Amino acid sequence: MQHVESFAKGVWVPSGAGAREICDAATGQVIALAGNDNLDPGGMIGYAREVGGPALRALDFHDRARMLKALAVHLNATKQALYDLSFSTGATQADHGFDVDGGIGTLFVYASKGRRDLPEGHVLVDGGFEALGRTGAFAGQHVYTPRLGVAFHVNAFNFPVWGMLEKIAPALLAGVPSIVKPATATAHVTELCVRLILEAGVLPEGALQLVAGGVGDAFAHLGAQDAVTFTGSAATAAVVRGALDGAVRFTAEQDSLNATILGPDAGVGSPEFDLLVKEVAREMTVKAGQKCTAIRRVLVPQPLLQPVIEAVSARLSRVVVGDPRDAAVTMGPVVSLAQRRDVLDQAERIGAEAEIAFRGTLGALAERGAFVAPTLFHCADPDGAEAVHAVEAFGPVATVMGYRDLPHACALANRGQGSLVASLFTHDGAVAREVVAGIGAWHGRVYINDRDAASEATGHGAPMPHLTHGGPGRAGGGEELGGVRAVQHYMQRVAVQGSPSMLGAVTGRWVPGADRTAGATHPFRLRFADLVPGMSLRTAERVISVEDIEHFAAFTGDTFYAHMDADAARRNPFFPGRVAHGYLILSFAAGLFVEPAEGPVLANTGLDNLRFLKPVSPGDSIAVDLTVMDRTSRNAEYGEVRWHAAVSNQDGAAVAEYELLTMVAK
Amino acid sequence: MQHVESFAKGVWVPSGAGAREICDAATGQVIALAGNDNLDPGGMIGYAREVGGPALRALDFHDRARMLKALAVHLNATKQALYDLSFSTGATQADHGFDVDGGIGTLFVYASKGRRDLPEGHVLVDGGFEALGRTGAFAGQHVYTPRLGVAFHVNAFNFPVWGMLEKIAPALLAGVPSIVKPATATAHVTELCVRLILEAGVLPEGALQLVAGGVGDAFAHLGAQDAVTFTGSAATAAVVRGALDGAVRFTAEQDSLNATILGPDAGVGSPEFDLLVKEVAREMTVKAGQKCTAIRRVLVPQPLLQPVIEAVSARLSRVVVGDPRDAAVTMGPVVSLAQRRDVLDQAERIGAEAEIAFRGTLGALAERGAFVAPTLFHCADPDGAEAVHAVEAFGPVATVMGYRDLPHACALANRGQGSLVASLFTHDGAVAREVVAGIGAWHGRVYINDRDAASEATGHGAPMPHLTHGGPGRAGGGEELGGVRAVQHYMQRVAVQGSPSMLGAVTGRWVPGADRTAGATHPFRLRFADLVPGMSLRTAERVISVEDIEHFAAFTGDTFYAHMDADAARRNPFFPGRVAHGYLILSFAAGLFVEPAEGPVLANTGLDNLRFLKPVSPGDSIAVDLTVMDRTSRNAEYGEVRWHAAVSNQDGAAVAEYELLTMVAK
Repeated sequence: MQHVESFAKGVWVPSGAGAREICDAATGQVIALAGNDNLDPGGMIGYAREVGGPALRALDFHDRARMLKALAVHLNATKQALYDLSFSTGATQADHGFDVDGGIGTLFVYASKGRRDLPEGHVLVDGGFEALGRTGAFAGQHVYTPRLGVAFHVNAFNFPVWGMLEKIAPALLAGVPSIVKPATATAHVTELCVRLILEAGVLPEGALQLVAGGVGDAFAHLGAQDAVTFTGSAATAAVVRGALDGAVRFTAEQDSLNATILGPDAGVGSPEFDLLVKEVAREMTVKAGQKCTAIRRVLVPQPLLQPVIEAVSARLSRVVVGDPRDAAVTMGPVVSLAQRRDVLDQAERIGAEAEIAFRGTLGALAERGAFVAPTLFHCADPDGAEAVHAVEAFGPVATVMGYRDLPHACALANRGQGSLVASLFTHDGAVAREVVAGIGAWHGRVYINDRDAASEATGHGAPMPHLTHGGPGRAGGGEELGGVRAVQHYMQRVAVQGSPSMLGAVTGRWVPGADRTAGATHPFRLRFADLVPGMSLRTAERVISVEDIEHFAAFTGDTFYAHMDADAARRNPFFPGRVAHGYLILSFAAGLFVEPAEGPVLANTGLDNLRFLKPVSPGDSIAVDLTVMDRTSRNAEYGEVRWHAAVSNQDGAAVAEYELLTMVAK
Repeated sequence: MQHVESFAKGVWVPSGAGAREICDAATGQVIALAGNDNLDPGGMIGYAREVGGPALRALDFHDRARMLKALAVHLNATKQALYDLSFSTGATQADHGFDVDGGIGTLFVYASKGRRDLPEGHVLVDGGFEALGRTGAFAGQHVYTPRLGVAFHVNAFNFPVWGMLEKIAPALLAGVPSIVKPATATAHVTELCVRLILEAGVLPEGALQLVAGGVGDAFAHLGAQDAVTFTGSAATAAVVRGALDGAVRFTAEQDSLNATILGPDAGVGSPEFDLLVKEVAREMTVKAGQKCTAIRRVLVPQPLLQPVIEAVSARLSRVVVGDPRDAAVTMGPVVSLAQRRDVLDQAERIGAEAEIAFRGTLGALAERGAFVAPTLFHCADPDGAEAVHAVEAFGPVATVMGYRDLPHACALANRGQGSLVASLFTHDGAVAREVVAGIGAWHGRVYINDRDAASEATGHGAPMPHLTHGGPGRAGGGEELGGVRAVQHYMQRVAVQGSPSMLGAVTGRWVPGADRTAGATHPFRLRFADLVPGMSLRTAERVISVEDIEHFAAFTGDTFYAHMDADAARRNPFFPGRVAHGYLILSFAAGLFVEPAEGPVLANTGLDNLRFLKPVSPGDSIAVDLTVMDRTSRNAEYGEVRWHAAVSNQDGAAVAEYELLTMVAK
């Protein structure tokens, strides 16, 4: 008998009064106890705010990303222990790939995105610089700063590892401490994962706590700087929402009647037909259908109804149900006897509107453990039916329905009143466009698979860390994951107004109009650490002659008429006559600002946001103001420096502006 | 006596049973009746969904932006009527600038942003293309599609024109029909504005409806595709929130104890000291202090307490309170006698913790109309006080408090438990950085003013359409405005997964990896309308010799060591030896793809996202794949075409990628 502990205020607290039982899914035997009525959730929340928050916020985004990487590496090295324990939840080895490996993969992606998509600082810039006046003396810039509270994560039983990791990764990256509250049925697996995380030794104190068992009065202690993320049933979501102050940021993933649509182009024998059949059978049986993203409704063109039912049934008939520890087994039990009862009850409600097209056999398994036979329904009247669009049987259960045309398919998909994901199997771009326009507002994700994508397609039911996970309406209206989008969920967007210099001081990034400092040394002679935003170089001038233009044209082969033919150029609405090539201006500008001798600048790696603002005519001269905008470390040897280049003419008018990327040695 | 009408299902409905009285603020006389218990809010909502929504969604973003421009132009031409009527609400001519001109200005900004920041299509792309596999066969792209419901806007009495226009502009731009419900006290002004809007004749049927008076059972008809935006008191916000299904997207702007902070650097005689004094007096008296963004708390360094009180009092003593129609008057009454009672009650609660530092005199005005004297409190114990941080006296009332140091100032500002805006008067970047880090999580906007910004600074209390308006906690937790951010509020973000070709079909934009079509004609010879995303050109190859590199270096002056010095280049971590200049590659690439003869391509206007991926050594050759990504009309003569340029070497390896912008004739 395992005693699942909570991790509160830095210490492990054993289960105690009020603990609940955890059973092995395959045998029904009690294997663990979790929960303790004497836990102090209010104290845990205070500890997170006062100890964990300040420690996390003292780190910058890149520090926190490196921390996630270390966690991912450690979990990856120790994941066998999680596999071993997870069998007791009914998960097969293949299912572990979703929960354990999927969770670790999510950590790796957030570690990588944290370095690539977030700055090496404490403030995340959102969108562009907004000039608010004619001269640019006053402007606006949106930034995100970490919220000063705690992220309280309430998880469902079906993903004890992934469910926690996908929630804490963006919160930790944002600088917000987490308290995790797993569903009791699989809390023993989450507890082990928390132990492994702490073992890695990289999290600051107070950054992560665990509530095993009930939450007590935790919700009463949360306020405007806190966030609650919830995954579970709509009914429980409503209870949680009701217990929270309205100012708490709340996001929910709840019930979802996810649909898949077979395109009208995907006839029998087409790759898309076969892909749909495979996906439906897979979605019904992975995790014994206990995925909030699993396909519940299969929408196929009326004439393909029978072929689809036959093909899916054939696949389902090969499913081997049994003890998940047995390698020959392809589908384990659902998590508990209570959950089996619930699945069978819901399936019965669906069965009142639909006939059974296929049902697997359980044999002796029916008498022990939480086994459920895969069941495919066919609903002949999807327009008149209600339950097939509204009742989620959270197990290996789906319903096939025929549709007349694409608008009908979209209308049926939308009858789910909001779902996490809908998939579409088509090789026709026009079908894809029409379906996304028709169902996009009701679905958090639309997954399109076809012969071109199949080799790398990630699966209807697999939320990817790069993409948002959540859906409107019945699905809870929340969003998780989606790269930086989830990090922003734990931060507060604030619109900052001020002079460019003040905005630069706030963001740590030089912006046009802010103060510049010109030093005695050419900035190309300075090393990475010595290049400070605002450091600037003003070059000499160079006159551009008609001979330069002709020479450049002959050399490069770019004899575009605006450079070569005065009459044609004058007929053009943009030019007064022959003008210099844009690339000539860039090349001469580089010639003006480059410091040629070997030095810390290693390479020009790119260029962003180039705009040509005014033509350069023969006889005009140009000069460049080159200014350090910001810098980001890449490794021990060098980092990236972003420069602002402003090319102006002899009248001081702006000719071109762009941002230049270089690698600079440390 | 005016009978304020509702505009429902395409017809004007007069006030009737259950109508409420509207009084002139300066005289207290009843001037209008608004409301009708027989209005059919459920029918109006259905009409918006079934008539207005499809009509708006048939237009693209640019069509809708042009519609907003036409509304703005018409309102600007007819605004005198709005001025004339608005005096009855207590607003002075200067106040009309905020409400009427501010509202029209917001329409103009959204019209302009709609053309500049939104695509000429129906789907808004969100963020980058996310490759989800090794080869790029499968990827993700977030897009926004219009929600299929209605936007129901509940407005406060203080901005009958701006309050409506700032809400309907982003909703209409998103393609979502609006129903506007103004506060009854000033509904007659909103009604006139709706009449002027309809008179412009550009809105599709069902795009805009008006509820004058009570909302009846409207909220019970709203669901997951609908949005409610609310501006008003926290108490009313809670009532509205409680009446809504949890799936309705709800955003609120409610109470706010906005603070201003005088920086420790801003001593007596500094420009920042004077700017703060002016701003405090202005914020207290504009709209008689009835702005949700007005300064309620003035935080100043302890030693500057007395000088600030004296300077603000001196300014307040020059305020002329009276009938807003009188040009000499600088502050009118609050909106109603009820509102006056409320302001005086709240001021009394503040007065229990703070002493009166200044109070204006009303004389005979005190006996008629809803006049309130400007009142400045001083709170000597801001740490111990509660009401000064929690009670919003919605009139010409503010409280000055001293702070010890910046962390203390931040802590006091955050005692407001969330506000719409905090301002800071400082000329020290380090102060700005510390304050934004300290208070950013509790404030929707931070406004920094100093001597550099003052000439164009837009004012503490003025929400700008470019920047988000809203704040966490007590301020309601909502966000409005902020350019495209508010448009997204009325759309659903959906993560679309598929092959690059399918994603391109959904967005209407070619992405790398999607199918290309090569035509017989050079694409530079095609006009704007004939350039379809995916059209592509593959150029000839060109060998790059060491002579080319030396020639380019000598010609441009760019003799950077990586191009000129084989030994130094080899010591560099990026290069195998001497390599071609990036600008040489770009220039030769243009030489390869440009069609020189006069034709529809008018100019190269810019370049985005250039990355150099692999060095080019002497003897390597390059070729370019140039592909149309997308296009956006600019005017009747030409539009912008975005091209993808992929430069590869003799082995087919990618050397450089970028996006090229050109103007192309129609």
